[in-house]
Amino acid sequence: MPQNVPLALSLPARYYTSTEYYERELDWFFRAMWVHVGRAQALGRKGAFQVHEIAGDSLIFTRDDASRLRAFHNTCRHRGTRLCAQASGTFASTIQCPYHAWTFGLDGSLIAAPGMDRIEGFARADYPLFEAPVAEWDGNLFVHLGESPAPLETQLGGRDRMFQAWRMQDLAPARRIVYNVAANWKMIIHNYSECLHCPGVHPALQKLSHYLSGENEPAEPGVLGGKMKLRDNVGTLTMEGRLTRACLPGLSHEETRSVYYYAFLPNLLLSLHPDYVMTHTLWPRATDQTEIVCEWLFHPGEMARPGFNPDDAVEFWDLTNRQDWHVCEEMQIGLRSRAYRPGPYSHREDLLAGFDRLILETEQRAGNARNP
Amino acid sequence: MPQNVPLALSLPARYYTSTEYYERELDWFFRAMWVHVGRAQALGRKGAFQVHEIAGDSLIFTRDDASRLRAFHNTCRHRGTRLCAQASGTFASTIQCPYHAWTFGLDGSLIAAPGMDRIEGFARADYPLFEAPVAEWDGNLFVHLGESPAPLETQLGGRDRMFQAWRMQDLAPARRIVYNVAANWKMIIHNYSECLHCPGVHPALQKLSHYLSGENEPAEPGVLGGKMKLRDNVGTLTMEGRLTRACLPGLSHEETRSVYYYAFLPNLLLSLHPDYVMTHTLWPRATDQTEIVCEWLFHPGEMARPGFNPDDAVEFWDLTNRQDWHVCEEMQIGLRSRAYRPGPYSHREDLLAGFDRLILETEQRAGNARNP
Amino acid sequence: MPQNVPLALSLPARYYTSTEYYERELDWFFRAMWVHVGRAQALGRKGAFQVHEIAGDSLIFTRDDASRLRAFHNTCRHRGTRLCAQASGTFASTIQCPYHAWTFGLDGSLIAAPGMDRIEGFARADYPLFEAPVAEWDGNLFVHLGESPAPLETQLGGRDRMFQAWRMQDLAPARRIVYNVAANWKMIIHNYSECLHCPGVHPALQKLSHYLSGENEPAEPGVLGGKMKLRDNVGTLTMEGRLTRACLPGLSHEETRSVYYYAFLPNLLLSLHPDYVMTHTLWPRATDQTEIVCEWLFHPGEMARPGFNPDDAVEFWDLTNRQDWHVCEEMQIGLRSRAYRPGPYSHREDLLAGFDRLILETEQRAGNARNP
Repeated sequence: MPQNVPLALSLPARYYTSTEYYERELDWFFRAMWVHVGRAQALGRKGAFQVHEIAGDSLIFTRDDASRLRAFHNTCRHRGTRLCAQASGTFASTIQCPYHAWTFGLDGSLIAAPGMDRIEGFARADYPLFEAPVAEWDGNLFVHLGESPAPLETQLGGRDRMFQAWRMQDLAPARRIVYNVAANWKMIIHNYSECLHCPGVHPALQKLSHYLSGENEPAEPGVLGGKMKLRDNVGTLTMEGRLTRACLPGLSHEETRSVYYYAFLPNLLLSLHPDYVMTHTLWPRATDQTEIVCEWLFHPGEMARPGFNPDDAVEFWDLTNRQDWHVCEEMQIGLRSRAYRPGPYSHREDLLAGFDRLILETEQRAGNARNP
Repeated sequence: MPQNVPLALSLPARYYTSTEYYERELDWFFRAMWVHVGRAQALGRKGAFQVHEIAGDSLIFTRDDASRLRAFHNTCRHRGTRLCAQASGTFASTIQCPYHAWTFGLDGSLIAAPGMDRIEGFARADYPLFEAPVAEWDGNLFVHLGESPAPLETQLGGRDRMFQAWRMQDLAPARRIVYNVAANWKMIIHNYSECLHCPGVHPALQKLSHYLSGENEPAEPGVLGGKMKLRDNVGTLTMEGRLTRACLPGLSHEETRSVYYYAFLPNLLLSLHPDYVMTHTLWPRATDQTEIVCEWLFHPGEMARPGFNPDDAVEFWDLTNRQDWHVCEEMQIGLRSRAYRPGPYSHREDLLAGFDRLILETEQRAGNARNP
Repeated sequence: MPQNVPLALSLPARYYTSTEYYERELDWFFRAMWVHVGRAQALGRKGAFQVHEIAGDSLIFTRDDASRLRAFHNTCRHRGTRLCAQASGTFASTIQCPYHAWTFGLDGSLIAAPGMDRIEGFARADYPLFEAPVAEWDGNLFVHLGESPAPLETQLGGRDRMFQAWRMQDLAPARRIVYNVAANWKMIIHNYSECLHCPGVHPALQKLSHYLSGENEPAEPGVLGGKMKLRDNVGTLTMEGRLTRACLPGLSHEETRSVYYYAFLPNLLLSLHPDYVMTHTLWPRATDQTEIVCEWLFHPGEMARPGFNPDDAVEFWDLTNRQDWHVCEEMQIGLRSRAYRPGPYSHREDLLAGFDRLILETEQRAGNARNP
């Protein structure tokens, strides 16, 4: 007989609606943790770049002359002009400011600064681009905006070795959809971390995997997740539920019969299927706005086959995504009510209660740090 | 010879422009008074519902199994999701949350809550919908968002019996227009409460009733109003001024020769004509934004006649409304000036001075309550 | 050998991004200095009017019965309604409020106030329009929103006599373009005050005048400027660089071989060419929004010639303006970065460092005034 679960209540509304609180949360989760950016592979060649806005800051990600990944703040050291207005592209060999032509190498060093020759005490070496450390895990690129970060592995809490069999570093995206959702970023993580809503919200998903088949692992500081079983006649999560691609090489039999769902805080949702991997990268834009980049990754061998078509996986999840964003937006609206009071979590929402505890502990620690 | 009137000045600009003050005013007038919602008749059958946003809160108005009118906050007791996204419709027999399917009866009781069976100490009886009391006066529906409200009759100050002859509970709306006006809600009440502006702003109205014919009653805490006389050759307020419908049954001769204008604070403007009743319901949306729902009510007997046409009344007042909203918006813009100083009221603006005194007294009482 | 220049750093980001600081700056520069409005000539006849929004206030500029220029706050003394919603036009002989018909003379005196006859102690003489002093310099109209202003000449610091030869009072605008720029107003002045950016940003300008030909005068409290030399084969700043109009009469040879650029704080940029004068009038609208009115003034003798065409001057500067606004907007975006730190000015940016010092001194004086 299953054990009883103590009553746990959801958070007060201000955790989702207060702009002041939101800014503090960005400090804790997006300016003091490794943040997922995207695929390292997307920056394939020297000079290739992408620009991402992270917690209000714009950063340029590029590969330097030694093919090392680098991240620089997108603000000129002369007078602050945005260096790069494009979202992606390739630098010839330097990064040049459009205003007064200060010129930086791909390693961030200041190479040229017109009109500075007569300025007393000026040295180019004092004005490299501001840099942020980057790290890579199985092809996933991370950046850290804070000071003296611990290694990425520490934050991943040992989970970095758990998905080696999928060899994510070998996979490539076949599709990418960007969603703008009018809901707090934590609601997206909450929504991802329980399937109690699946029967009502996702009838198509429900046909492929029973919502009670999900088995969560206990919540950890940086990771919330578990796995759900595919129904007997189901091969993977697609519109038809049939496997039309080979399973990823190296997966065990059990790994081909399950879907793994892991939220790596603060902003990577990793969904591993027998034949493909899906990532959601969350970008908080306001307390009630989240930009979500969803990518579908496949094995290059499959992608090279004539007639390769990712639509069955993309359509299934695009439908499911939109159903999820809708209920998250309805929750965001409902929380504006002055009548709202925290309500009780069900025992299928244990990861949510775990995430909330982490939030409260983080807030308390930050309070202690300010008033030690 | 008419008596002299002491000098009274209009209010400082912050009463119309400060967002902080606006929020306090919502507390005093919209969260601690009975607020007009609309026609009780519109919720005719069991399960029929309307959703209204009142002072930032969303409320569901419906009729329960015993045909009693009820008002519930539109936020699920589980995790706060908005229960009902539609503006109106009919519930089958319950109110179900779109997220995790918590299900409430039309009396607000929690009937079903999936996944809660193993939660220690959880009882459905502890989680009914949050309810707000409603009341009805001659077919007009009111709601109260505050605690332990006095009876509606007390707020109406005895005026609830004054308009029995019009039998508003028998009338039905033939037309409804919603206006979004860029002016503070109090300016709409001010504008309604004097006709000094009529000669210049409303030439069509001026032809039907001389602006000096208006006789205000002394301002009372919850009610500002009076009546104006129709000119001799005028039958009612329409584009042509001719009576094309029977007068409402039960009106005295004098009542068929006048138009009564009463502002019931905080948000009902009631305009009674010989052959129809017009209501304005004011919904403050921001310190400089008011949504105004205007309805034209007629006698069912007239509405059943072949060729019934409310256009002459609707066009006349739609024109007059738009003229009024325009000058209110110009006042809202003018008050933004740092040079603005309170100016002197004329003796035709006595109700406005009375309303302002009420505002100041309310503010002072609230200040005393906070610092007793 | 040129002398070395001490290192000076640009300002912290809050000077360009903080809404609170922006409001204080409006107090110092736009509510306590003479502000440029436009051409006095544009208000040619009695009753002609223009409305301008200055630092959040709306002002009516008109010519009274004695043909004197006057400026009035655009808010009725009765209840604050905006008097004039049009941007420009001609008053018949009075200014009448659209709401209750309070009527003011062109000298601001209250002439009629309906319904005030029975109000004790009311006197029309107590309610004239609020007025602001105006002043004129060589056809340029200024207004002062503060108390007891020093004469305009004091603010111009003697420069008012420097450009007499151009006889600006005789010139007339042939073209006017209004730009809305997403950058702080001080960035526009900075941009105007250095040509270090010209080789990269303005290739067309660079062909006509070498950027190193500019000679700045030392920055003064109210004036930043200097002159640049036209290249030998260049007659004026136009797309082709050829003089197609006579030089302005009265200019010396040297004056016909240079372009003078003077920023008169807080909001007039005066660019004097051999054959035309260009003015930029800056209207701060938010900390990151500036409305810029650009006018091209020519000699009436030239304008009267058959085939007069200002396009060569207008196109050249419209192109150059847009290039400038673009880099200013990129700087505004770049400054949002939390990583931004003040950077070093080159020796070609001495006027900018001078302007920054003025800003800091003004801020310090204001701080002292509050805490003496």
